[in-house]
Amino acid sequence: MALSRAPALTVAILSKAFESFGGLHGLINSSDAERRSAGVPAAAAQFLCSSAALPNNAEQAWIEEPQHCVLPFTDPRYPRALRALPGAPIALYVAGNAGVLNDPQLSIVGSRNPTPAGRDTAFEFAQSLAACGLGITSGLAQGIDSAAHRGALAAQGITLAVLGSGIDIIYPRINFPLSEQIRLQGALISEFPLGWPPRRENFPQRNRIIAALSLGTLVVEAARRSGSLITARLAGDHNRELFAVPGSIHNPLSRGCHELIRQGAKLTETAADILSELNFSAFFDRAHEASGGLAAPPDIEAGMDKEHKILLDALGFDPADIDLLVVRTGFKPEAVSSMMLILELEGHVQAAPGGRYSRVVRSRR
Amino acid sequence: MALSRAPALTVAILSKAFESFGGLHGLINSSDAERRSAGVPAAAAQFLCSSAALPNNAEQAWIEEPQHCVLPFTDPRYPRALRALPGAPIALYVAGNAGVLNDPQLSIVGSRNPTPAGRDTAFEFAQSLAACGLGITSGLAQGIDSAAHRGALAAQGITLAVLGSGIDIIYPRINFPLSEQIRLQGALISEFPLGWPPRRENFPQRNRIIAALSLGTLVVEAARRSGSLITARLAGDHNRELFAVPGSIHNPLSRGCHELIRQGAKLTETAADILSELNFSAFFDRAHEASGGLAAPPDIEAGMDKEHKILLDALGFDPADIDLLVVRTGFKPEAVSSMMLILELEGHVQAAPGGRYSRVVRSRR
Repeated sequence: MALSRAPALTVAILSKAFESFGGLHGLINSSDAERRSAGVPAAAAQFLCSSAALPNNAEQAWIEEPQHCVLPFTDPRYPRALRALPGAPIALYVAGNAGVLNDPQLSIVGSRNPTPAGRDTAFEFAQSLAACGLGITSGLAQGIDSAAHRGALAAQGITLAVLGSGIDIIYPRINFPLSEQIRLQGALISEFPLGWPPRRENFPQRNRIIAALSLGTLVVEAARRSGSLITARLAGDHNRELFAVPGSIHNPLSRGCHELIRQGAKLTETAADILSELNFSAFFDRAHEASGGLAAPPDIEAGMDKEHKILLDALGFDPADIDLLVVRTGFKPEAVSSMMLILELEGHVQAAPGGRYSRVVRSRR
Repeated sequence: MALSRAPALTVAILSKAFESFGGLHGLINSSDAERRSAGVPAAAAQFLCSSAALPNNAEQAWIEEPQHCVLPFTDPRYPRALRALPGAPIALYVAGNAGVLNDPQLSIVGSRNPTPAGRDTAFEFAQSLAACGLGITSGLAQGIDSAAHRGALAAQGITLAVLGSGIDIIYPRINFPLSEQIRLQGALISEFPLGWPPRRENFPQRNRIIAALSLGTLVVEAARRSGSLITARLAGDHNRELFAVPGSIHNPLSRGCHELIRQGAKLTETAADILSELNFSAFFDRAHEASGGLAAPPDIEAGMDKEHKILLDALGFDPADIDLLVVRTGFKPEAVSSMMLILELEGHVQAAPGGRYSRVVRSRR
């Protein structure tokens, strides 16, 4: 944990130092001068001599929790797919089953605000492919990412969420319940130290890990200029397979996928397209079966009052205030207020600053 | 007309005979023996000596109508694009403006039973491209063909219909009024003698002419095994550009287009994609304007009832059935049914086979 917080260290530098000192413990027990002569940069060596290198309270508490671990790049469970990556993380924080990190994976990424059909498509692809034994890797964002994680969970499959913040900071907060399920049925992963906030600049770095971990990346719905396309291009750069789902030319969220297809991504209609491209042929028949049964509609808010459901759908997945909900639903303001209170008490929505409400995204299981 | 009815004649044979006799009139005035020694096959020579070679009543009547003509392959108005074709027609029957046959053309083909969105797409592409000066060539079939002809007509552009029957046999009969408009604003073309019925085996031959006449072929919606794909592959064989419009993975009529895209057809979202690929750069700005109009967010749902709007948003851009819409909106099934009926009557959605509905994407021009 200290090394992952140290400035100016890379896997290459540490590999060399570990060689000199016979591993991590040798490095820890070495002197400042020995470290510097073994190629440890001044800033890092200085950090390692300071009290800042000692485990802090948060770290001590976190590592003691069950199923929490930190995998240095020398750990056999550290993903082989990452080792070759320039700028590979020195260590990965893992909450969940660290044994799945080397499983064959497909990443599924896309818009945070997909169409209903796009969300279903992500869920269904993830469900089919997870049922065939592929881990489903994504970024725990709202929209396509969440749908992909949920699809894998629904298939009792493996899913991995790679965070753009410290592993103790679940972002977006609304996905905390989903993150708990992922932890139980797969793994949450972060290369950032504990407490690291979800800064904008973390996400390209996080996307690089998603791309590198996976045999391929599937883009479900993405606008022409979007983070998903960045992940996708990174996948291409790492010689990973790139898959994109086509859609209506009138759907702005198909444009990114179409752009990728024009640039050589595989046009993808079914889970079988992906399995055959990845030579997952042994699993092909199971996939075929699974995708037959996939159309089953999600059933989350089954017993809910119809007007409440309309309101919840009108809320969508971004915070909205009462006025906006009145406009969207056509209900009277006082009706919206009282229904939102009920929805809040039932745990479907959460009050946010500025008189706004956010939806609480429940797992579908 | 007689030569086009004669057996065993080809453009190659006739070219040689015309050289020997100094053209068509020399051939007509030559003796049977001279014809045979000039390489005219026995069957053809025999036919030319028989009374069957004389113009019949139908031919005499047809050729006297205004804007009717027969263009032998030696006529300067005969399409240059066809001359190089193996098995080029000896003559073309033309009703309409024979001067347009050498205009730059794009063929638009696809299913005879398209989705409403597919029909609109064909219409809109044809309208945009015809407005930019491209002739729109198709086969006068129902569905995509008809929509393409109509789009070109709506733009006051040029459109050409290539028939799979004699030019005096309009098939399907229901398209007779459309054929009249095409005749007035473009041209009807056939290589078959008058009275020739629309036999199944004529259509691949007709499709070859459509493909060869055009700079490229755009496939809008086509099932995986369909005549449209044959035309498309012929276009590829003749080194013509091949364009295909992607669509929802849940639309069976997008499968053929997706297959073509996988095989190298250009994924096509806008008319500008086609114009730039064809280097129609002089026209590009006009097209861009035209398609800019298309990309403007639709404002058609402005005054719509809120619940109807929710339903339309839930429908998204892929066909969906009532059950799925019930799940997505939380409305009661009977409410969804009655609202869908209203939306259908108002022209916002259209019923599709299998109890599904598609959104009607309106032209925004």
